[in-house]
Amino acid sequence: MSGSGHIIALSGGVGGAKLALGLAACLGPDRLAIVANTADDFEHLGLSICPDLDTVMYTLAGLADPERGWGLAGETWQCMDALSSLGGESWFRLGDRDLATHLQRSLLLAAGEGLARVTQRLCGALGVRHPLLPMSEQRVRTMLDTDQGELAFQTYFVRERCAPRVRAIRYEGAESALPTPALIGRLETAAGVVICPSNPWLSVDPILAVGDLRERIAATRAVAVSPIVGGRALKGPAAALMEQLGLVPSALEVARHYRGLLRGFVIDREDAAQADAVRALGMEVLVTDTIMVDAASKTRLAAEVLAFLSGLRA
Amino acid sequence: MSGSGHIIALSGGVGGAKLALGLAACLGPDRLAIVANTADDFEHLGLSICPDLDTVMYTLAGLADPERGWGLAGETWQCMDALSSLGGESWFRLGDRDLATHLQRSLLLAAGEGLARVTQRLCGALGVRHPLLPMSEQRVRTMLDTDQGELAFQTYFVRERCAPRVRAIRYEGAESALPTPALIGRLETAAGVVICPSNPWLSVDPILAVGDLRERIAATRAVAVSPIVGGRALKGPAAALMEQLGLVPSALEVARHYRGLLRGFVIDREDAAQADAVRALGMEVLVTDTIMVDAASKTRLAAEVLAFLSGLRA
Repeated sequence: MSGSGHIIALSGGVGGAKLALGLAACLGPDRLAIVANTADDFEHLGLSICPDLDTVMYTLAGLADPERGWGLAGETWQCMDALSSLGGESWFRLGDRDLATHLQRSLLLAAGEGLARVTQRLCGALGVRHPLLPMSEQRVRTMLDTDQGELAFQTYFVRERCAPRVRAIRYEGAESALPTPALIGRLETAAGVVICPSNPWLSVDPILAVGDLRERIAATRAVAVSPIVGGRALKGPAAALMEQLGLVPSALEVARHYRGLLRGFVIDREDAAQADAVRALGMEVLVTDTIMVDAASKTRLAAEVLAFLSGLRA
Repeated sequence: MSGSGHIIALSGGVGGAKLALGLAACLGPDRLAIVANTADDFEHLGLSICPDLDTVMYTLAGLADPERGWGLAGETWQCMDALSSLGGESWFRLGDRDLATHLQRSLLLAAGEGLARVTQRLCGALGVRHPLLPMSEQRVRTMLDTDQGELAFQTYFVRERCAPRVRAIRYEGAESALPTPALIGRLETAAGVVICPSNPWLSVDPILAVGDLRERIAATRAVAVSPIVGGRALKGPAAALMEQLGLVPSALEVARHYRGLLRGFVIDREDAAQADAVRALGMEVLVTDTIMVDAASKTRLAAEVLAFLSGLRA
């Protein structure tokens, strides 16, 4: 992007991390910070697990598995296999090297360090140069009201493979949670906010629900990249979830969801016909190729999004 | 052994586990229980680690690494390597499959189960048929007064590689700890107790120090196999430790240490010249080959020890 000022990207897991990596290729560590959703975090096997923080961290470190989309490349599964033999819970697959991240984070948290500082340490050890911030240091948990009762996020997402029908979603603890001071400071001086193509209900809304973050982000120049292309989610359960919530899965519906928050919205060429309807919601629209298949397409999309953001009417 | 009645073996780690395996080859699960030292247990990386229980468990399950003497055969070290990269503590090497044992045990303990029940579950999952009992469910910790200050056992043994000079040893918590009810019941009806060739000060004394276990064991027919052969410890720091405590490392000195407790003592042919001096302490003596190099020699020594025990004067 042209001009000075720094950017804040909001990200969930896999889809968001792809654009975050593209943004990191365009902007140096002094120009970009990434905020990850922590409402998917959970305690499992006695460990503190932060799936979105880790997906972004591993992606930025160049260590993420490109096939699975989560966890580390070249991972092994000896511990999980042994745990399964012992009758332990193995539905949430933790690779052997990934386990070290959870062990170390859990130890540092138990010793009284905050999640922001712990994330900084882990990122430093893995060579991640861009600031990666948890949305909050307080506990927020996405809880899904489903036809099988209320389920914690990972139970719904991983153990039950998104099979239960979702009726409503709440972000337990979000109202009383505080954005990290580092995030508040950065938002006050940010040139803009980029909401990565992550699930609006499961990855982005929990961030927006923390304290007054929605208002703080709405006060900046904020744009989002649609995670829905051609009525389908590129990754994960976003499209199915929208249907269960009574919405037509489309980029337009995502834009409607973000109304009042965004100054600009990025949709795929496949959805170009929806551009005018999105504009009618009061947003500027960028129509481009949004499917990121390789490093080059991540960097290209990031550069286009940054140019779009900097060109928005003041 | 001839006759009915069941045997209780007391064991520390590697050396003791070898004879325990031999005993298990001679006696069925209804005739043999093994009691392991738990004063080496410690909390590390947020996990509850029980080295002696696990060494015996893995040995009886046929899963122990025959070269290292501890841990699992065919183990991998991905998690430790990653933890080291993250700046975590990796001086206590936990293999990837071994980690599953500690994760599962820690979870079950945190859920309120006792160590005896947790050990039973783990043994069941690994196919161990003989009862393996912790000496106590209460916390006992071997603490070493050294020229580098007081050190917890694993700090002395693993992190500092037994380099500090030991001046005194205490078993923190032992006096107020209780033997498990299962152990008390078994001792009351036992045909005898076999103290495996484990370190008297670091592996066996902590067991004897639990509540009134010394008196209860002295009231049975108890024998020990010397862990010192030809003035050397077959494994571990027993000989060096004896010197630091002002003792000459010898089978005779070990027998002196156990005076008042044992009815019989087993020494190696190499130490045959010490037999009369041991007898003068009021013990019967078996002189035989005590170095266990393979499964056959473990079983042979176990059978000889059992025959010796059953032939002791009533």
